[in-house]
Amino acid sequence: MQAGRLDLGLRSETVRRANLGAIVRGLHEHGPLSRSDLVVQTGLTRSAIRGLVGQLTDNGLASEDREVRLGTPGRPSPLVRLNPEAATVLAFDVSVDSLAAAVVGIGGEVLDGRRIDRPRGHSSVDDIAADLAGLAASLRDHGAHGPAVIGIAAAVAGVVRRHDGLVAMAPNLGWTDAPLGMILSRALGSAVPVSVGNEADLGVLAEHRRGAAVGVDDVLYVSGEVGVGGGLIVGGIPWNGAAGYAGEIGHIPVNPAGSPCRCGSTGCWETEVGEGALLARSGRPRDAGRAGVDEILRDAGAGSRTALGALDDVGRWLGVGLAGLVNVLNPQLVVLGGQFSRIFPFVNDTIEAELDRLALPAPRALVRIVPALLGVDAPLLGAAELAFEPILSDPAGWFGPRLGSMHLASA
Amino acid sequence: MQAGRLDLGLRSETVRRANLGAIVRGLHEHGPLSRSDLVVQTGLTRSAIRGLVGQLTDNGLASEDREVRLGTPGRPSPLVRLNPEAATVLAFDVSVDSLAAAVVGIGGEVLDGRRIDRPRGHSSVDDIAADLAGLAASLRDHGAHGPAVIGIAAAVAGVVRRHDGLVAMAPNLGWTDAPLGMILSRALGSAVPVSVGNEADLGVLAEHRRGAAVGVDDVLYVSGEVGVGGGLIVGGIPWNGAAGYAGEIGHIPVNPAGSPCRCGSTGCWETEVGEGALLARSGRPRDAGRAGVDEILRDAGAGSRTALGALDDVGRWLGVGLAGLVNVLNPQLVVLGGQFSRIFPFVNDTIEAELDRLALPAPRALVRIVPALLGVDAPLLGAAELAFEPILSDPAGWFGPRLGSMHLASA
Repeated sequence: MQAGRLDLGLRSETVRRANLGAIVRGLHEHGPLSRSDLVVQTGLTRSAIRGLVGQLTDNGLASEDREVRLGTPGRPSPLVRLNPEAATVLAFDVSVDSLAAAVVGIGGEVLDGRRIDRPRGHSSVDDIAADLAGLAASLRDHGAHGPAVIGIAAAVAGVVRRHDGLVAMAPNLGWTDAPLGMILSRALGSAVPVSVGNEADLGVLAEHRRGAAVGVDDVLYVSGEVGVGGGLIVGGIPWNGAAGYAGEIGHIPVNPAGSPCRCGSTGCWETEVGEGALLARSGRPRDAGRAGVDEILRDAGAGSRTALGALDDVGRWLGVGLAGLVNVLNPQLVVLGGQFSRIFPFVNDTIEAELDRLALPAPRALVRIVPALLGVDAPLLGAAELAFEPILSDPAGWFGPRLGSMHLASA
Repeated sequence: MQAGRLDLGLRSETVRRANLGAIVRGLHEHGPLSRSDLVVQTGLTRSAIRGLVGQLTDNGLASEDREVRLGTPGRPSPLVRLNPEAATVLAFDVSVDSLAAAVVGIGGEVLDGRRIDRPRGHSSVDDIAADLAGLAASLRDHGAHGPAVIGIAAAVAGVVRRHDGLVAMAPNLGWTDAPLGMILSRALGSAVPVSVGNEADLGVLAEHRRGAAVGVDDVLYVSGEVGVGGGLIVGGIPWNGAAGYAGEIGHIPVNPAGSPCRCGSTGCWETEVGEGALLARSGRPRDAGRAGVDEILRDAGAGSRTALGALDDVGRWLGVGLAGLVNVLNPQLVVLGGQFSRIFPFVNDTIEAELDRLALPAPRALVRIVPALLGVDAPLLGAAELAFEPILSDPAGWFGPRLGSMHLASA
């Protein structure tokens, strides 16, 4: 029963705080907006918008300027924009072959970021956390101990229990039940709690807000690296399943006669389409990494039949798995991320042909397959979005001493 | 951006109509409730509840009695209950081997129903619609032309475009782009529009409201008849994908070396686990139907190795497909419906073993596999729920001349 939504007892201060959140979220997701835009976006009255924007500018979270909009005649409309320095987050990405850290300002601007290669193989959670803390310390505009850092989050190539940041399983990192959030928080010496999300779940969040899937409500993001993961947007909302484990599409059994998978099963989709499969099909060691994939792409561009054949095989298996996923999930858009976005030009036609052959006509006719716009950084940028979530939901709550003193009753 | 939810411009009459809907929905989904229960469920004040319940009883949609609750001391609390005769729906089910019709009263009571066998093979939509209209005419408490029938809906074993009731594809019925809703409406001579839904989508709706999945938020319902379909509840809400086509789990490619499927593809899950596969594995004709399945179950109960072997094979392939779905969807509960609920005792152990072998430990540990409680009638009862939806959302709007004259402003 959904009656709770209609609770009339909602206190007016709560409503006003939520409205402040709606404005901050609108500016964060859409960029600078005029007050008229905000009226349309939030459904609030012009005078409510004036009061709330005034609170944000008084406290330095936003500013208002008179930027001339090109092509619009008449008096320019003042634009409200968030001040990226006023609230920043630290975002991390733990992928199988690289580590990354970034400082992102509210509104989505990356203020500084670094990615380093990671030796393939297993490392302890403590070592990784120490490396990430080192990366963070090297960033400009860091200020981990200053008041501006309001959130920290990490994307990881593993199965994550969202509510406490436990990495239940990351076979390609060698982790089981690893409390990454807690250990990273300690390594950073930060009082700000660290959220953790699966890299594909965060990849689709970023592509949905700022990449290939803006404005699309039903999206499947397929992350293809050493492992293959999936992120889902359902009816416009990120969906992670009952315990945050949904989207483990790399482990759909697609080939009963296939190879053993690192997860312990056999013939999983990732054994046919993961980076290792592409490398092996082209006659390279399975652990030749990004450099090996670079060679395959170069050879394929030069017309090498071995390279093109390997890509074609991967494209066919991509089509097989995507056909099942399209039938089950009926997405409007499939975004191919990670290495898949790089091999996309070579596998696109094969994927489309396999979908024609294997998927049901109705959902097949509806779906488009596109490469990720944010490329390899999608999970990192998605981690930033995760870290911003509390302030977007309740800016007054998060700005405690500063926005807490706002005259909310006058909104 | 979700700011629309916070729109403060919502008019108070709209809110009151929505509150009336919350009460009717609460009573419909939970059964008779005291006013105190309604206060808790809706978050409305006691005086608002009094006013709204008064409107419902004045207009005959509900009544209030003084039923003694067993085991509760003191003065019995009056219970508000819906009057099933005051608002009824006609529900239909078009499955591959049977047709069914029922009159269901608000609150979910089946007032009358009939199911007839249907000769296997292809029939035109017009013939089916005529058969359904004949079934409906034979029901007691029908009153298709009376004021009490407020909705009509049909479940169908096919891919349905929900917004206009077009059956895009029903390979086991031989239909393509069949406007079932429109044709059935005409055959019934009814002014009430006919909604149409996929049988698994409606099956999960019924199991979620009144069956094995009550109170569970993330549910996968697997309907196993001639074809295999899936229905999904995601975060407590039915989910049908971008165009209503989601859940076509029967057409996941699971066996590249498998048999051709009626959908045009090869090695779909339904070619390994559908009714035809079970019959063929036991040495019977693929179209031996329910009677053939009855024989297999009887033989298996008597210890026949052929029958047990056939069930074991189907159980193994059920496990393969479910492993992929558990990894992708991370449901709390999988409800096996249709024929799968009947073979459940013979396949349960094999399914569990295959899930242990093939699914990722984290989502696997969370999921329970259970048989459907409503059995073969789940899609029919789900169609009734679909037909009730408009009155649950806005009872005043649907009762037009009667509830329309309610003194809404006094609520």
